Amino acid sequence: MPTIRAAILGFGTVGEGIYRILNERKKEIEEQTGYTIEVVSILVRDTKKERIPTPGVLVTDDIRDVFAQPQLDLVFEAIVGEEPAYAYLSEAISKGYDVITANKAMFAVHGPALLDQAQIAGVEIGFEATTAGGVPIIRTVKNLLAGDRIQKIQGILNGTSNFILTKMRQDEVSFKEALKEAQVLGYAEADPTDDIGGKDAFRKLMILSQLAFGKQADWETIEMRGIDQVTLEEVLDAGRCGLRYRHIAEITIDETGNLSGSVGPVLVGASHPFYGIDGVDNSIILNTDYLGALTLTGPGAGMYPTGNAMVNDYIQIIGTRKNELISN
Amino acid sequence: MPTIRAAILGFGTVGEGIYRILNERKKEIEEQTGYTIEVVSILVRDTKKERIPTPGVLVTDDIRDVFAQPQLDLVFEAIVGEEPAYAYLSEAISKGYDVITANKAMFAVHGPALLDQAQIAGVEIGFEATTAGGVPIIRTVKNLLAGDRIQKIQGILNGTSNFILTKMRQDEVSFKEALKEAQVLGYAEADPTDDIGGKDAFRKLMILSQLAFGKQADWETIEMRGIDQVTLEEVLDAGRCGLRYRHIAEITIDETGNLSGSVGPVLVGASHPFYGIDGVDNSIILNTDYLGALTLTGPGAGMYPTGNAMVNDYIQIIGTRKNELISN
Repeated sequence: MPTIRAAILGFGTVGEGIYRILNERKKEIEEQTGYTIEVVSILVRDTKKERIPTPGVLVTDDIRDVFAQPQLDLVFEAIVGEEPAYAYLSEAISKGYDVITANKAMFAVHGPALLDQAQIAGVEIGFEATTAGGVPIIRTVKNLLAGDRIQKIQGILNGTSNFILTKMRQDEVSFKEALKEAQVLGYAEADPTDDIGGKDAFRKLMILSQLAFGKQADWETIEMRGIDQVTLEEVLDAGRCGLRYRHIAEITIDETGNLSGSVGPVLVGASHPFYGIDGVDNSIILNTDYLGALTLTGPGAGMYPTGNAMVNDYIQIIGTRKNELISN
Repeated sequence: MPTIRAAILGFGTVGEGIYRILNERKKEIEEQTGYTIEVVSILVRDTKKERIPTPGVLVTDDIRDVFAQPQLDLVFEAIVGEEPAYAYLSEAISKGYDVITANKAMFAVHGPALLDQAQIAGVEIGFEATTAGGVPIIRTVKNLLAGDRIQKIQGILNGTSNFILTKMRQDEVSFKEALKEAQVLGYAEADPTDDIGGKDAFRKLMILSQLAFGKQADWETIEMRGIDQVTLEEVLDAGRCGLRYRHIAEITIDETGNLSGSVGPVLVGASHPFYGIDGVDNSIILNTDYLGALTLTGPGAGMYPTGNAMVNDYIQIIGTRKNELISN
C-alpha cells in the first residue's frame, strides 16, 4: 500500500486529536483511501513538555527539521495565531505539499492568498476545521454551490460565547462567573478576548463569506460586538419575554453582489432555529435559492470533532490526488 | 463542450423540478462540470396532460421510446411506487446508464439489489433525494463514514406528519382537520396512508440504515406507528407539561453490530433538538464516535429542494465520471 508522509504543526488539543484519530482509525482510513498515512514529524513549541507517546515520529521545535525530511506529502497545521503559521503553510505549498489547517485567525486573513498560491502550485488546501469545528459546513457550502446559490449565512460560530449566554440564563449567574466556569471547563482560553469580543465569530464569518460569495466583506463595514456587554439582568429580562440572547454572525449578498453583515448578540424568539441551541454547540443556517433554509448544528470545537474534520479533509484530498495519479 | 444525454422518468413535482433547475442553472452547472446536460426524453403517464413547455424533448408514455434513443448517459427517476420504477432502473443500469432516483418506496426495498447491480455494471446511483428531500443527509453520512463511525440515527423524516402535529398544537385542531389542511396545501397526498401511518418515515430510515450500517434492520423487528392515533387532547395535555409530539424514526447499532429501532410519535422536551422543528421540515441527528451529535434540518420535500438534491447527485456523478475519462 502506498504511503502518505505527513507532518503535524502544533500539538495542542487539535494536533493531538489528528494524531489520535489517524491511529485509532488506521485500518478504516486505509480501506477508504487505499493509502497508509504515516506521521513523520510533529512541530511543537517546547520539546520538553510531556505528551502522549508518538513512537518513531520526529518531535522538533524547529520548522527546518520538518521541511528537511525527505518525501513529505502533506502538512496538518493546528497552530494558534497568524504567524508563523502563514509562513509555514506558504512554504509548504511552495514545496508542493497539500495542507490542511484548523487555524481560523490565520485563514481569515491569509486564506485568499493561500488559496491562490495553492491553485498555482497545484496543491490542495483543506480548511473544514477552521469554521464550526466538527460541523461539516465548508463541505456542505461547497457542494451546495454547485447547483444552487447562497443568499445568506447566519451562524452561532463561537461556542464559548454560546456556553456563557446559556450559563447566565440557566444558572442566573453573571457574565464574569459564567466566563470563569467556561475557563475551568476548558471552553475558554486564559485570554478569552477573541471569543467574548466577537472576533473569533467574525473571522469564521469571513471564511464562510470567501467560500460562499467568492469574497470577504470589507472588514470595517461589519459591525462587530461581543457578549461581554450583556448583563445578567438583560438575559433574565429577555427570558421573561420568551426571548434568548444568541451571539449571531450573519452575512447577506444582495442582487448586485454587495455584502452586508453583522456580528453581535441578538434576541431570538422560540420560533427561531437558534432558540434551542444551548451550550458549546455551533449552528449555521444557509439560505439558498432552492432549499429555503438548511441548518447544521454540532460541536464547534474539541479534540475529536476538530481532528475529525481535518482527517476528513485528508480523505477528500487523497481522493482528488488518487484520481490525478490514475490519470497520469 | 461534451454533452450528457439524460432522460427524466416521471414528470410530477419532482421531475419538473429537475427539468427547471437544469435549465435555470444551465450556465453554472456547465461551468462546474465542464459538461452540457441535455434532457432528451421525458416519460409521463399521460401524454395529453398539460405541462410546462419542453422544446425539443421527446415526451412519451412508453419506456421503450426512452431506451430506444441513441447515446443515453443518465436517467433521473421520479416515479412514485416500487414498480415499474425498479424494472426501469434495473434496465437502465444493465444498459450502462448512471441513475439518480428520488423514489424512496422503491429504493427502501430494491436499493440493496440496485447498488449491487450498479457496482457490477460500473455505473453510479444517486439517491440523495430519497431521504429528507433537500437536506444533504446521504452525502453527509457518506462523508462522515470515511473517518468516523455512526452509532445512532434519529430523524423527523416525514414532513407531512410533522406539519399535522404542528398544526394540531398551534391551532388546536383535530388530527382530521390538520390532515385536511395539509392536503389543501399540497403537503399530503390524496391517499396519505404511508405518511400518517409511519411507512414513509420507516422506508427512509431503512435507506439510512443501509448506508450508515451496511444493512437494513429486519423490517419486522422495527415497531412502526404513525401519527393517526394521536388525539388533540393528548397534544394539548403534552403542551401543558412543556412537551411536544414529534414523529421520530430512529435506529441504533450496538457493539456487536445488532440493529434496533422504532418509528412513531414521541414526546420531547424543550432541550431536545427536535422540540423546535415545526412545519414540514425534516431533521436528522447523527450520533458518531468523534462528533457527539450532528443535526441537519431543512426542507423534506418540494419541487426545488428535491430537484436540487438530484441535480447535486448529477454533479457528483459527473465528477466521478470525468476522473475516469481522464484516466482512460
